[in-house]
Amino acid sequence: MTLHPLPGSRITGGFWARRRAANRAAIPVGHQRLAEAGNLAALRIAAGETTGTAEGASFRDSDVYKWMEAAALEHAYSPDDALAGRLRELTRTIAAAQCEDGYLNSVIQARGEPRYARRWMSHEHYCAGHLFQAAVACARAGETGLLRVATRFADHLAATFGPDGWPELDGHPGAEMGLVELYRHTGETRYLALARHFVGSRGSGRASKPGFDPSHYADPAHYADRVPVREAATVEGHAVRAVYFGAGATDVAVETGDAGLLAALRGQYDAMRTRKQHVTGAVGSRWDGEAFGGADELPPDRAYAETCAAIGAVRWAWRLLLATGDPGYADQIELMLHNAVLPAVSLDGAGYFYVNTLHRRTGARADVQRSAAHGRRPWFHCACCPPNVMRTLAGLPDLLATGSRDGLEIHLYSPSSLRAGDFAVDVSTAYPWEGRIVVTVREAPDREVELALRIPEWASGSTVDGAVAAPGTYARVRRTFRPGKQVVLNLPLHARLLVSASRVDATRGCVAVARGPLVYALEKPDQEPDVVLEDIRLDPAAPLRAEHRAGLLDGVTVLHGSGTVTPGTPQRPFGSPEPPARPTDITLIPYYAWANRGPHPMRVWIPV
Amino acid sequence: MTLHPLPGSRITGGFWARRRAANRAAIPVGHQRLAEAGNLAALRIAAGETTGTAEGASFRDSDVYKWMEAAALEHAYSPDDALAGRLRELTRTIAAAQCEDGYLNSVIQARGEPRYARRWMSHEHYCAGHLFQAAVACARAGETGLLRVATRFADHLAATFGPDGWPELDGHPGAEMGLVELYRHTGETRYLALARHFVGSRGSGRASKPGFDPSHYADPAHYADRVPVREAATVEGHAVRAVYFGAGATDVAVETGDAGLLAALRGQYDAMRTRKQHVTGAVGSRWDGEAFGGADELPPDRAYAETCAAIGAVRWAWRLLLATGDPGYADQIELMLHNAVLPAVSLDGAGYFYVNTLHRRTGARADVQRSAAHGRRPWFHCACCPPNVMRTLAGLPDLLATGSRDGLEIHLYSPSSLRAGDFAVDVSTAYPWEGRIVVTVREAPDREVELALRIPEWASGSTVDGAVAAPGTYARVRRTFRPGKQVVLNLPLHARLLVSASRVDATRGCVAVARGPLVYALEKPDQEPDVVLEDIRLDPAAPLRAEHRAGLLDGVTVLHGSGTVTPGTPQRPFGSPEPPARPTDITLIPYYAWANRGPHPMRVWIPV
Repeated sequence: MTLHPLPGSRITGGFWARRRAANRAAIPVGHQRLAEAGNLAALRIAAGETTGTAEGASFRDSDVYKWMEAAALEHAYSPDDALAGRLRELTRTIAAAQCEDGYLNSVIQARGEPRYARRWMSHEHYCAGHLFQAAVACARAGETGLLRVATRFADHLAATFGPDGWPELDGHPGAEMGLVELYRHTGETRYLALARHFVGSRGSGRASKPGFDPSHYADPAHYADRVPVREAATVEGHAVRAVYFGAGATDVAVETGDAGLLAALRGQYDAMRTRKQHVTGAVGSRWDGEAFGGADELPPDRAYAETCAAIGAVRWAWRLLLATGDPGYADQIELMLHNAVLPAVSLDGAGYFYVNTLHRRTGARADVQRSAAHGRRPWFHCACCPPNVMRTLAGLPDLLATGSRDGLEIHLYSPSSLRAGDFAVDVSTAYPWEGRIVVTVREAPDREVELALRIPEWASGSTVDGAVAAPGTYARVRRTFRPGKQVVLNLPLHARLLVSASRVDATRGCVAVARGPLVYALEKPDQEPDVVLEDIRLDPAAPLRAEHRAGLLDGVTVLHGSGTVTPGTPQRPFGSPEPPARPTDITLIPYYAWANRGPHPMRVWIPV
Repeated sequence: MTLHPLPGSRITGGFWARRRAANRAAIPVGHQRLAEAGNLAALRIAAGETTGTAEGASFRDSDVYKWMEAAALEHAYSPDDALAGRLRELTRTIAAAQCEDGYLNSVIQARGEPRYARRWMSHEHYCAGHLFQAAVACARAGETGLLRVATRFADHLAATFGPDGWPELDGHPGAEMGLVELYRHTGETRYLALARHFVGSRGSGRASKPGFDPSHYADPAHYADRVPVREAATVEGHAVRAVYFGAGATDVAVETGDAGLLAALRGQYDAMRTRKQHVTGAVGSRWDGEAFGGADELPPDRAYAETCAAIGAVRWAWRLLLATGDPGYADQIELMLHNAVLPAVSLDGAGYFYVNTLHRRTGARADVQRSAAHGRRPWFHCACCPPNVMRTLAGLPDLLATGSRDGLEIHLYSPSSLRAGDFAVDVSTAYPWEGRIVVTVREAPDREVELALRIPEWASGSTVDGAVAAPGTYARVRRTFRPGKQVVLNLPLHARLLVSASRVDATRGCVAVARGPLVYALEKPDQEPDVVLEDIRLDPAAPLRAEHRAGLLDGVTVLHGSGTVTPGTPQRPFGSPEPPARPTDITLIPYYAWANRGPHPMRVWIPV
């Protein structure tokens, strides 16, 4: 059963409103960071507006496009003249920078480098994909100028890389999603055909660095290019590449009605979910190559878990949700948004993680840009993540629900106002802190429509208007609604202890704690002083008591439990006596809120 | 108590004789690989013997020097005209390649690149260090031609980088060990002074890549250059750099009588041993930056455990053993030789691991050069490891024992013939398969001398001539020996189960199995068919039975145990029932012998 996107959903308060407010405040700062980092200068040099040297990676235009998409989404949601002005100004520069034949890459143009000469790392198609998505977002916000730039670039790509063109592929997928978005907006079938061609061509080693290279640069797997997409059993290689490709290929499968391709992609997503996804929903296990590990290779401490990979996985899951109506994908979206995307941004919206570790030891060091040892950072040398967070939070209302003339499906619970044609509802809730969700009908047609409410897989004991609702389904209420009618959903939010898949080695003997959609973590400031986190063991039989603390970390529900502290021991014979343990109180905070009081030791997986 | 190296020790059979025979056969092949890989061409171009382009990294001369050291050690041990001929031919080329002022780097010269311009990666001093060690080894084998090249290069370095010279440091330590070796051989104190200066200068960020770089290239920690050596509490950064620096700094401490420096280095070694060393003795946890991880970051599956790091750590431990007489360092050497160096080479001597994983899952993929997924390889693009293994095995007899006029200290047990002046003994044993070691006096002076026998820390219940000997000490027999007198040492070789230090997360709930100096592993071919190794749990209460199998893996003692197989389960609520387990027989092989029947799944740490 396919679902239909629902534009115009509003978030009217609560958890996500706070996070989105911080994000909105960060968007103008993002423009300033792009200026400081030289992204805007490169475009202005290519446009002939200034002179100088374009510094940095050739894919930095994508940061600008992602920022524009974020700004356009915010401007569409809540008009903002300043943002609109920035968008127009940037559009003028970008249009001026574009080559006669439609090609556009400010850094390569400004440096006079040959086009497509370093396809495995230049990411020219990837940038194009972000341009297309930005252009459509701008057009939906009433700013249509960028669309012309986008279609000209797309026409150039279709002419150059279409089925009869140059066979090489860009090293970084991303163009596919953008091309399908542009096709949907313009109706131009050549864009869909090009996306389909890119998807079908991948898998024969045309994307990797030619010649010998001992590292991942010469490995087709790094580029999602080792196995044709229809034959791939799982995801591998560079995590962002892999999930962006999955999302774009799903777009192609949906728009071309390719059931075989869709089935293959569902299988790959499922293999990722069950064998290569951290408990937080984050994906990508390896720093080396920013890559997926093997199945069951899920180290909390060295999780790469790049922010952009989580964002790409959300986009992939969203497309699969629309294509199939399977609530498992909505569960995935909820899990990843709360525990893999949101941890990447500080509560004040001013700092970002590139890498989202699940475990920070005392005194651990690593590189300054990406390691949690140094806390969240205002921006990055390779700044893919911050504007990606911006556009994701700006676009969040679109993920709340889907709908059609037949009714509404609610996937994410937030105080919100939702409308599908002549059926409109208001949602009120203190979720994710409380599990009571009240849907009030504001406007209803004089015919039967359906209100479908997602019951998360974890939510056993849920009720809709008092009747038991099965986890992992949509509870469906079909009737002729009257305005004012309320439907009350109760999702029991008891704390849950989870253990890893048995073949995962890195978290053996540990539990993760979750409550509702939130994964929890131990952070040093909440424990007894002088305790080394690695010495704590949680008593799994002791109750975990929830307490909402409005003054802590912008308002969080913490969990109180108990356990023991055993002083550290060296390597020793099995069975030799341990030093005596002493009891300790344990307090857990939502994982997304960690590292907002300095970069303290933290762990998601806790030994029992 | 300082110990004194004992030249002239002979290995007369047994375990190491077989491994050294394979190594000796591999040495001429190594020369061929150096030719095929272009290392020799680069030298010949620089020498004006041929024309062409020097390919590859600027530190590839070091591969040649390490090979020469190996060949010289073998030639000295057992004269070989073919090897001597190769050494002379290479020496002529190298001498011709050397610049007028003593500088020498074939790749940089052949390419006309500026000297010392990319110090963080060009490794010109590191190459010099290997040249010095090769030159001394050649001279000891009667081939003195390379010594003149070495002293000319050392003189150039002393003039250019001495205390009044250029303050920048080479990115890769190694010169220090070579300079001290050259000082010992020539008596030239300027070489010791330069080594001392290099050691003292490190720790203020003069080795790293200047300017901004988001990766480890700009991080002084990568270069063992973040903290002055006297202030460092542990090792960090690139593992080979760190242990080579430790070894060279220990040389300086010993030769300058610097007790404070020696104490600091002992502390760093101990911090490495207790918090950053795998159970096999391997060091270096991270693929990213080929680096040490934080304390207790010891993932078996993603252990980098570079072969060269183990070799460097052996050299460091050897220097600390000589400096202190502490048998713990000899235990370390034995552990690392058997379980961190030896696993890097195939039983036939024809293939090498660069990275020594402690766990290979079914179907895991990674880069072709370094991943265990592809098995050992004949050579590498960056071929630091194979000739390093060659010189280590070639030089192994020198590590068996130390001695002086006062007697002999035996550190490693092998059938061997040892002599300290007028005191000579023969050792016979089937160690490491059996624990009985018989030392027969062949020649003895007419005065009291001491025979000191290392009792490993793991060897509780050991006896010397029937008397109990304490583990972790040297059992000392002091008397006026008569030729023919036998001293019988018994080291009980029962299988042992070990658990990690409690703060190590990656191996929680697992045991490693060891017997004598050998760490054992589960490898797929020895288990029941169709069992996934990750599903096996060892019963720690069941006995482990040793069986020597002469026909398996060039002769190994395997261990038979029992346990269960539990089918894999997905992530699930804590406490939910597991599928039923079935009993299984378990067979373990010595870890060093894995991957000699194809690159099968393997694990060192086994869940209980």
